[in-house]
Order: sequence, then structure tokens, then C-alpha cells
Amino acid sequence: MKYSSQLIEQAVQAFSKLPGIGKKSALRMVLHLVQNDRPAISEIIDSLAHMSSDLKTCKRCFNFSDHELCEICRNGTRDQNVICVVESIRDVIAIEETEQFHGTYHVLGGVISPIDGIGPSDLNCEALFERVDKERINELIMGLSPTIEGETTIFYISKKLSEYRVNISILARGIAFGGELEYADGLTLGRSILSRTSYVHLEE
Amino acid sequence: MKYSSQLIEQAVQAFSKLPGIGKKSALRMVLHLVQNDRPAISEIIDSLAHMSSDLKTCKRCFNFSDHELCEICRNGTRDQNVICVVESIRDVIAIEETEQFHGTYHVLGGVISPIDGIGPSDLNCEALFERVDKERINELIMGLSPTIEGETTIFYISKKLSEYRVNISILARGIAFGGELEYADGLTLGRSILSRTSYVHLEE
Repeated sequence: MKYSSQLIEQAVQAFSKLPGIGKKSALRMVLHLVQNDRPAISEIIDSLAHMSSDLKTCKRCFNFSDHELCEICRNGTRDQNVICVVESIRDVIAIEETEQFHGTYHVLGGVISPIDGIGPSDLNCEALFERVDKERINELIMGLSPTIEGETTIFYISKKLSEYRVNISILARGIAFGGELEYADGLTLGRSILSRTSYVHLEE
Repeated sequence: MKYSSQLIEQAVQAFSKLPGIGKKSALRMVLHLVQNDRPAISEIIDSLAHMSSDLKTCKRCFNFSDHELCEICRNGTRDQNVICVVESIRDVIAIEETEQFHGTYHVLGGVISPIDGIGPSDLNCEALFERVDKERINELIMGLSPTIEGETTIFYISKKLSEYRVNISILARGIAFGGELEYADGLTLGRSILSRTSYVHLEE
């Protein structure tokens, strides 16, 4: 594209590196900022600069944090004896959105995947074992995706913790909300019948 | 949404002010930057800061510019005696994309719209009349949208310039490329038959 301005071009270039943003959307954003919303420019600059320099990783659960410990780990009203083990920070946000979980998290930073050369030592596994060893953890909820890699990771962690008296649970497998029964795969449908549960209202 | 980090939240807030970007996309962008593309953060910061402080408006045609005069106005290989009058800088970019125009532009900054309280004095009309008066302009192409406001603006400008020996032309009205003939409105279809043209290849 031809912008007749190097400055515009550089900004478009920078924005088009964002996921899901092409040249056209980037241009739309840049023109919007320049023409209609100049204050938003400094807002973006400031927030990115602060984030870049001050964002930490919680030394306990590896979630993003503004301090040594993240808000969830510092929150006394949450059950600090329950850990939900997740693959990424995105999963923390997704579970927090449901408002159904009141414990803490442990972000592994991935799952065991020999094909991709990712072993336990590449993940925050040791820190998890240390938490189970030192803190009084009652339950470990394995909030990992039901994939081969997820199952492998669950198996590895549960093996390693077999000496400890900690309950290990996995997320319920079953039909997803909004899915059509007739299109569910046989394995999921079969398991969802075997593991049928009593009807419970979600907390509101 | 709950991000367990004020810093992330502020960045998401700032990004979600961009056109077409909701909270979810903004979060995706911010997490992508923090987790996968830290260099892009400073790239965005730098390009926005430069753009915000150094971007000028061409004093001749009101296009964006890095200097007093924009690249198009300074370009000796372009026909400086032909002006394409457009509503906004977006239109300049759209026409430049076609690579079919080799003259200069004049960005009005809007069109005359009494309903919205926009009169000629709110637009860069006087500067256009001055250009026609002082420069040796052969042709004025009215590159405005075929709306009531666009037509009003064309009428106003052509009236004002009636004493000058300058050719005033409008963009061809007709069937849009990719449109289906049977769904074209009668007015457009009728005019496109009356104004039929000999077949010409686009420049490549």
C-alpha cells in the first residue's frame, strides 16, 4: 500500500504484526488514532511501556502479576489449598471468567509433548511439586486440554505425586454446552453417559 | 474480564478503543505481545510516538505528510496540474492503490452537509480555490462519493470556479466491478447504459 507518509507506514507495519490484523485493519486503526482519537495514542504508548517494564510473573503460580505474588495468590478469600494446574495464562483467564473456581492456579507454561521436544524440565513442574511438598495442598485439579499431550502431562504429574496425600481430579469430560448431541463424537458421548451427574445449578 | 494484573488490564483497555477491537481481541493482542513478541511492543510504542509528534498535514493538499509538502505534491513525475478532490485521506489511499491516477490531490476533510451543520467554511475549500487561482490547474477531478452531500459539494465547487478555465470532471458512475447486473439499482443501470464507454484496459 502507498501511504505517502513513512510515519503512517511504520505505524501500520507495527500494528499489522498483531495477531489477526492485516494491513487494511492496521491502517484503519492508525488513521482512527491520528484523526479521531489522539488521546488513545498516549494511552496505548503508556500502557504498553508500563506493561513491558513492570509486568512480572508470580513466583508461586507463574501467572502474570504486578507484584511478587499475583492477586489470586495474595487473595485470602480464595482457597489457597486447592491448585488448578493449567497450560497457559489464557486458561487462567478463561477459568476466572466462569467465576466457578475459588482456589489458586499453577501455570505449567505448556504440556509435555515429546514430538515438539517439550519435556517436564521445560515446564514449571518442579515448582508445582515443591508447592505440593511445602504448602498444605488438598486438591490438584488438572485443568488441561483433553489431548494426548494433556493426558500425558496429567499422568506424569499424578505419578510424581503418588506418595503425597493430595486428591487429583480432572475436568469433567462430556458434551460441550451449545453442541448438538448427534454430532458429538462417540467417545465423548459414551463417556458422558457413563459419567452422568446429578443436575446442579451454576453459581451466579 | 479478570486479568489478575492491572498492567494487563490497562493495556487491554487501551487496545479495545481501536475500531473493530473488542475486549477479547484486545486481550489476544496484549498476550501475544507479552508472551511471543516483546520486540513488537517497542516497535508499536516508537512508531506511535513518532507519528504522534512528527506527522504533519501537507500545507498544499491536506494529505498526511512527513514534511511541509507531502510526497505526492513533491513528486515531479506526477502531473501537478491535475487535482483530484477527495473527502478524506482514506480516499487518497484508496485511489493510490488503483495506480490509475498520476496527478495530485486535495483533501476537503469532509463534504457539505447542512443536516450535520457542515458548510464550505468547515472544509478546505478556500485553499482549493486558491490553488486553482495561483497554480496552473488544467483539470479538477471530483473524487467524491455519489451521495446527496457529495453532489452538493461538487455543485458548490464547480459554481465557485465557473470563471476559471479549468475542466471539472466526476468519477464515472456505473456498475461496480463484482456487482451483479440484476441487482443494480435502476438509476445506476440506466446511467451506465447512457454513459457506456469504449473498452479500455487498465494500466498495469
